[in-house]
Amino acid sequence: MRLLPEPTPEALTLASVLYAFGDPVRLELVRRASSEPGAPCAVEGLNVPKSTLTNHWRILREAGVVRMAADGRYRRTWLREDDLNGRFPGLLDAVLQLSDHERSYSAMP
Amino acid sequence: MRLLPEPTPEALTLASVLYAFGDPVRLELVRRASSEPGAPCAVEGLNVPKSTLTNHWRILREAGVVRMAADGRYRRTWLREDDLNGRFPGLLDAVLQLSDHERSYSAMP
Repeated sequence: MRLLPEPTPEALTLASVLYAFGDPVRLELVRRASSEPGAPCAVEGLNVPKSTLTNHWRILREAGVVRMAADGRYRRTWLREDDLNGRFPGLLDAVLQLSDHERSYSAMP
Repeated sequence: MRLLPEPTPEALTLASVLYAFGDPVRLELVRRASSEPGAPCAVEGLNVPKSTLTNHWRILREAGVVRMAADGRYRRTWLREDDLNGRFPGLLDAVLQLSDHERSYSAMP
């Protein structure tokens, strides 16, 4: 597997990480990366064009939120939990938890 | 004073609030709104054009992060702490605290 370029943990900034979280599709990608480490970038059930999805993954990778690796014909992703928790303690868990809550809230009849 | 249009607390979304936080200038505006409720939008010491600043305040207002009111020739701003804490418990405090920490970190020689 070949790792795609990514910022070092020291280079992460709060603003760019918050920006990366700041989109409903990217929040969903973060949730999936959290629950399925190493899963391919191609994601079922999201009603967005492939090019849009590629762009969202790129924003997450360049902000340091996810790690991506080329694995043959797949690109696989991992959430950079340790790096995020080291630099911004509590932020990732808060965002994942609030996102879970918002999903269940908006799914109510 | 005349209140500018803003979303109701129920209309706030996690993604748009995170997006609003996701810029270094907007993070600084949030910090100032937090420490100086009702202060005018014109902010000293930020090296950005007035039109850019106006745009950043608008993004914060439209996401529901700040309240703005026209007061004669001023526009005044308040952080919507109660609404944010009601909808996204813990998020605002986490972001303010991490932002403080990042500032002191990056200010170190």
